[in-house]
Amino acid sequence: MSDTPDSAVRAYIQQHRAAFLDDLAEWLRIPSVSADPGHADDVRRSADWLADRLRATGFPVAEVWETAGAPAVFAEWPSGDEGAPTVLVYGHHDVQPAAREDGWHTEPFEPVVKDGRMYARGAADDKGQVFFHTLGVRAHLAATGRTAPAVNLKLIIEGEEEFGSPNFPDLLRAHADRLACDAVIVSDTGMWAEDTPTVCTGLRGLVECQVDLYGPDQDIHSGAFGGAVPNPATEAARLAAALHDGDRRVAIPGFYDGIVELTDRERELFAELPFDEKRWTRGAHSHATLGEAGYSTLERVWARPTAEVNGISGGYQGPGGKTIVPSSAQLKLSFRLVAGQDTDRVQEAVREWIAGRLPAGIRHELTFTGATRPCLTPLDHPALQAVARAMGRAFGQQVRFTREGGSGPAADLQDVLGVPVLFLGISVPSDGWHAPNEKVELDLLMKGVETAAHLWDDLATGDTSWTRRAH
Amino acid sequence: MSDTPDSAVRAYIQQHRAAFLDDLAEWLRIPSVSADPGHADDVRRSADWLADRLRATGFPVAEVWETAGAPAVFAEWPSGDEGAPTVLVYGHHDVQPAAREDGWHTEPFEPVVKDGRMYARGAADDKGQVFFHTLGVRAHLAATGRTAPAVNLKLIIEGEEEFGSPNFPDLLRAHADRLACDAVIVSDTGMWAEDTPTVCTGLRGLVECQVDLYGPDQDIHSGAFGGAVPNPATEAARLAAALHDGDRRVAIPGFYDGIVELTDRERELFAELPFDEKRWTRGAHSHATLGEAGYSTLERVWARPTAEVNGISGGYQGPGGKTIVPSSAQLKLSFRLVAGQDTDRVQEAVREWIAGRLPAGIRHELTFTGATRPCLTPLDHPALQAVARAMGRAFGQQVRFTREGGSGPAADLQDVLGVPVLFLGISVPSDGWHAPNEKVELDLLMKGVETAAHLWDDLATGDTSWTRRAH
Repeated sequence: MSDTPDSAVRAYIQQHRAAFLDDLAEWLRIPSVSADPGHADDVRRSADWLADRLRATGFPVAEVWETAGAPAVFAEWPSGDEGAPTVLVYGHHDVQPAAREDGWHTEPFEPVVKDGRMYARGAADDKGQVFFHTLGVRAHLAATGRTAPAVNLKLIIEGEEEFGSPNFPDLLRAHADRLACDAVIVSDTGMWAEDTPTVCTGLRGLVECQVDLYGPDQDIHSGAFGGAVPNPATEAARLAAALHDGDRRVAIPGFYDGIVELTDRERELFAELPFDEKRWTRGAHSHATLGEAGYSTLERVWARPTAEVNGISGGYQGPGGKTIVPSSAQLKLSFRLVAGQDTDRVQEAVREWIAGRLPAGIRHELTFTGATRPCLTPLDHPALQAVARAMGRAFGQQVRFTREGGSGPAADLQDVLGVPVLFLGISVPSDGWHAPNEKVELDLLMKGVETAAHLWDDLATGDTSWTRRAH
Repeated sequence: MSDTPDSAVRAYIQQHRAAFLDDLAEWLRIPSVSADPGHADDVRRSADWLADRLRATGFPVAEVWETAGAPAVFAEWPSGDEGAPTVLVYGHHDVQPAAREDGWHTEPFEPVVKDGRMYARGAADDKGQVFFHTLGVRAHLAATGRTAPAVNLKLIIEGEEEFGSPNFPDLLRAHADRLACDAVIVSDTGMWAEDTPTVCTGLRGLVECQVDLYGPDQDIHSGAFGGAVPNPATEAARLAAALHDGDRRVAIPGFYDGIVELTDRERELFAELPFDEKRWTRGAHSHATLGEAGYSTLERVWARPTAEVNGISGGYQGPGGKTIVPSSAQLKLSFRLVAGQDTDRVQEAVREWIAGRLPAGIRHELTFTGATRPCLTPLDHPALQAVARAMGRAFGQQVRFTREGGSGPAADLQDVLGVPVLFLGISVPSDGWHAPNEKVELDLLMKGVETAAHLWDDLATGDTSWTRRAH
């Protein structure tokens, strides 16, 4: 445990809060919408602004890195201490599109502070959560009297996250030496609720595929031929239906091979979260929950692999009926994966399973359209414990653990850099990511600053057995 | 068996063949395309032409009947003999669309005789097969020396068959008294092959429905929610897949209730047909056969009820993938029915089956979009035997029995008029119904004339225990 006086950190933050918020507002005024080619200059302006600001913060290195698409920002502040862990902070400086007429009460790129919140596109996702690291490292230095962080601190802030990070893996591979680190801290997630600080411990992986099924060479008459020839729409349905058994467990042989099962401790921790199933279901715009037997809703979305039909089509889809046996049908499937599942092995299992289930007369084409590995840091990982401790000090209360059901570039960081990925985020579900009137809670933003201030000290002085240098 | 000398019939036909073909060609020049509003006048001209021609043939009554759509033609020629059976011939005077550029070698509405065939839209479907009855009844009179047919002969020739016969049931109901008969002869089907004269004994029925499934109120993120909420695309697939069991038998409880099973004799007769499964499969544009275990391909399409997925849709269908749990999905299903199945009972069975299979959180709407009853005349029915005998005399060979897998207005005739429906058709599969270069084989057309000439005599003088008047 660090001996940094928590009160010194708080005093520093309090002193610099107003200037920090002014700076953040300045950044939020840059409409860095990566999905819109018309905002390409703004995305570049956003990168330049951030690099300047990081230099002003004290980072001796702050560079704009080009990609085949939008630029990223890299910054580095070496500790100077021999054996200090190296930490890479990940975030993104691009934002989702936003327009006043979508339902914003104020201009999305004119930040407004009201009732302790700052409203602007990107306030929470992700500029606010990137920017708290600038004040965080300054508070860390002020409270410890250091002139450089206790860890070798690096930042990689990409500019295409809201666009699917198409060039991010290449960027990571191209700069793997400069990005080398002992752990990645992703600041692009959230916590359970305003009064429930949590640390996310992992994301699910993802395998996506399209299955095209071909039967008769053309649509044929269901009276003349129906009942005696294979129907690709029926076979598509039989495939999709066979994805799950009666317990809604994925029925593809080998699918669950090697998965890291939830521990009793993790299940207990999930169960301790103040979860309101009815409220969650409403939030999902759904009318019931349904999933793998033997698991709770949170376990199903966070810690269990799934098979989902994202799209199905075949045959006649216009008004009324048409008595045909259709010529073709198509399935769009996706599989969420959890730790221990391998995307290649899952793809192979899907391939074999489909090939073995189709009758003669049905030809198929299987195309994998995407694969992202799962990532999970064990609860007892010293660096994860350090994040939880730092957050606990900032919030003055016990920190709980969550996961996220989605998939993201965190997996690329884990895979390319070969290090554990930790998550430090202070956004809450009501922040409205991708929605009108996105905001960030200013008190929570300051807790993020405070957590970062504690974290670098804790990581350097706590158990460092997990770092590369320690091996 | 009639004592009409077959040679007299043949001689009369030979004598009038050329004029008959000239007349048919004149009718075929009228492009009575019911599906195209631009041809509405032609459909009317076709009806007028036919009514005129029937009067010229000798029918004392020949009227154009209006419907909410295209006009039909009704004609009547009473026998004059007390207790004579009343027979109603059904056909249609409208045709499918046709354009030279669709692949016709000659103008579709300029009949061309070549190599013993007449090429024109409607040559086989159905003008040729309607028109052989005009020469047929004249040959019957000539050979028997009668001045009126041996049966009370009625014709109802509709003008919207190629458009789904939307107004036909209403027409039948409105004129049920004038259409009253002991049997219907449908001349709008074909026979097995040029060298294999056959009589069709029934059509399958049809129930069509659409099932709309609703899950989340909007598409939702499959990472955040997938695996824990019901997915309507998955449920649509599970419904469609559950339509059949492992033996490809329809798995809806009660679906097979009351069906008239194939007799051993019928199965023997089907098996005796010169059936080439590979050729049939190619004709179906398919690459294999597949259907209910324990039945042959012909039994499956002619005599077994089916469940078919005509269309399925839900979720994302564009390029690449989209990780959503879709908000809704849709199924278009059709069920072919066989004798003994009731359309209302089947609809109720489908309704109950669907309602019992969907999980909480999936709302559904079931819409029935069409229902046609099956029809089947038993092999030992005296009128059916008379058709087979008449055809056997015309062809000079044994006549076999088939069914058709499709469904049609024959069922309306059976239901509204409450009489057995028999089929007398001489078209062959190569005639190209609905396709470019439709043709009719002139020798077969003359066999149709000859069959009709024999049939009226046979029906009146053979076993008439089946007629209403006999009861």
